[in-house]
Amino acid sequence: MNAQTDIKPYVIGLDLGGTNSVFGIVDARGEIKATTAIKTQGYDSVEAYVDACVETLHVIIDQVGGIELIKAMGIGAPNANFYKGTIEFAPNLTWAHESIVPLGQMFSERLGGMPVGLTNDANAAAVGEMIYGVARGMKNFIVITLGTGVGSGIVINGQVVYGSDGFAGELGHVTMVRENGRMCGCGRLGCLEAYCSATGVARSAREILAKTEEPSLLREIDPETITSLDVSLAANKGDTVAKRIYEFTGEMLGKACADFAAFASPEAFIFFGGMTKAGDLIMEPIKRAYEENVMKIFRGKAKFLISGLDGSSAAVLGASAIGWEI
Amino acid sequence: MNAQTDIKPYVIGLDLGGTNSVFGIVDARGEIKATTAIKTQGYDSVEAYVDACVETLHVIIDQVGGIELIKAMGIGAPNANFYKGTIEFAPNLTWAHESIVPLGQMFSERLGGMPVGLTNDANAAAVGEMIYGVARGMKNFIVITLGTGVGSGIVINGQVVYGSDGFAGELGHVTMVRENGRMCGCGRLGCLEAYCSATGVARSAREILAKTEEPSLLREIDPETITSLDVSLAANKGDTVAKRIYEFTGEMLGKACADFAAFASPEAFIFFGGMTKAGDLIMEPIKRAYEENVMKIFRGKAKFLISGLDGSSAAVLGASAIGWEI
Repeated sequence: MNAQTDIKPYVIGLDLGGTNSVFGIVDARGEIKATTAIKTQGYDSVEAYVDACVETLHVIIDQVGGIELIKAMGIGAPNANFYKGTIEFAPNLTWAHESIVPLGQMFSERLGGMPVGLTNDANAAAVGEMIYGVARGMKNFIVITLGTGVGSGIVINGQVVYGSDGFAGELGHVTMVRENGRMCGCGRLGCLEAYCSATGVARSAREILAKTEEPSLLREIDPETITSLDVSLAANKGDTVAKRIYEFTGEMLGKACADFAAFASPEAFIFFGGMTKAGDLIMEPIKRAYEENVMKIFRGKAKFLISGLDGSSAAVLGASAIGWEI
Repeated sequence: MNAQTDIKPYVIGLDLGGTNSVFGIVDARGEIKATTAIKTQGYDSVEAYVDACVETLHVIIDQVGGIELIKAMGIGAPNANFYKGTIEFAPNLTWAHESIVPLGQMFSERLGGMPVGLTNDANAAAVGEMIYGVARGMKNFIVITLGTGVGSGIVINGQVVYGSDGFAGELGHVTMVRENGRMCGCGRLGCLEAYCSATGVARSAREILAKTEEPSLLREIDPETITSLDVSLAANKGDTVAKRIYEFTGEMLGKACADFAAFASPEAFIFFGGMTKAGDLIMEPIKRAYEENVMKIFRGKAKFLISGLDGSSAAVLGASAIGWEI
């Protein structure tokens, strides 16, 4: 039995997003051997969704040589509880927005008892970095995902931090501004996410444009429709105002990381998501603010890295990595 | 060999403070079977200090039946590095204030190769709570020590968080006030410790007394000499101003814990140190501010506890607990 288990060379990854469900069969080096996708919505029930997934999955399972070669399945999904293997009250999933869905068990039953683990995207990204990415060999690091929201996956002693209830690692929701802080999507004020998510960056743009008369490419856009992508494009063209928006965002992230160091003293902070395409424009202010704000004993120790997972398939890779860990 | 190891019923704890070095031989239930102490200072070298320790130790080792009954030794000390077994540049220890001292190895060599672990007081307290105290059976909790400084010991997945360099868990130095924050002993501004340590509480007292004319028992004391003990005594007599100082301190701690929950989602926050003698006067504001500030998914979940280690011997018990973990 063990010999057979040891030679199973693949895991399945499912990146379960609000729109698409993307599958990949992945080997231990992070190479995607086969991939497919279905729409996430449009099913009457979670049973119908899982049935459709499994039907699609079997096509790529056959492509790689059959289910005997697959060790496990990992799912990255919103509102996922790693301990329970459930998705709980996910507002963007019609078949799980008012209930607790035992998705792990459902997939496992339809896949011959295959082990199935699920967690949120940011934790999946952290495991992905540890197994295939820039955190290989690291035991203590923090992945910060900069997207629609700000998420995090924390690894301590080589293990993802899930906490007592499975929901630890919500670093987008530490309070950075305690007076007159921005309203955050979580209903509280002054969260990191309210400043450093894509919508936070767009809001910073509107605020900075309104405060000055300085010329900027961003003034050609209706302020209400500015996105973080507009800021990125303008910054890459050398726009001073756009660069200042990245300075502000990076400074906030660097200060937050200084507090995270007091907690976990990680070997590295790894940034993941669209905003990292700005490269040094965002990374340099992060590093500078970190070194200026962190405790003396931590200065100059932590690395600041950009995700090593291939952008287009990073989420599937991250999800699949959970399969190696369970 | 294993059978022999398994039956060793005791560990040695050393609470290495700036003034005294207190030893205890402790069983697995946290009962101190023998204890002794020497002065920490007054030795020409660390060798002379360790020699004096070992000489004293042998007396109590003989009392409990000999060195064969002792599994290991744990040391709680300032500036201790768990990974290396060293004390590094400890300002209050004459024989270690300008060097890196391999204290663990030195004790081990003089005690027949006995395993010796050392860590700082707050981490020792965390292990102490896990083995003998109120955190028995818990895998995820945070101990916050309220003393001259504010320290912390973080346990995740049943393990103390030491981070990449051995210095993680400095929650007294997360930044709570980002504008016009108080100067902290660490050289930075606005740290939790600057508000919630004993000196922080005394400073809050001076500030609150200076701001109002409200009568208070604390006005009988020269403001420059007020201590946190004075505040405690006044609060216990029902003094409104003193109670408000605890409200302010507890609110700051509760808000900090709300951020710590976003990181680690612990089962419990455990408070340790002199200030906890104030009981509900400090614990109620902590809990209230926590529940008001924490993310919705964490509300009502975490316990707020006072240390279960006997005050007078808590530090020795904490140190000894390290002996069970190595």
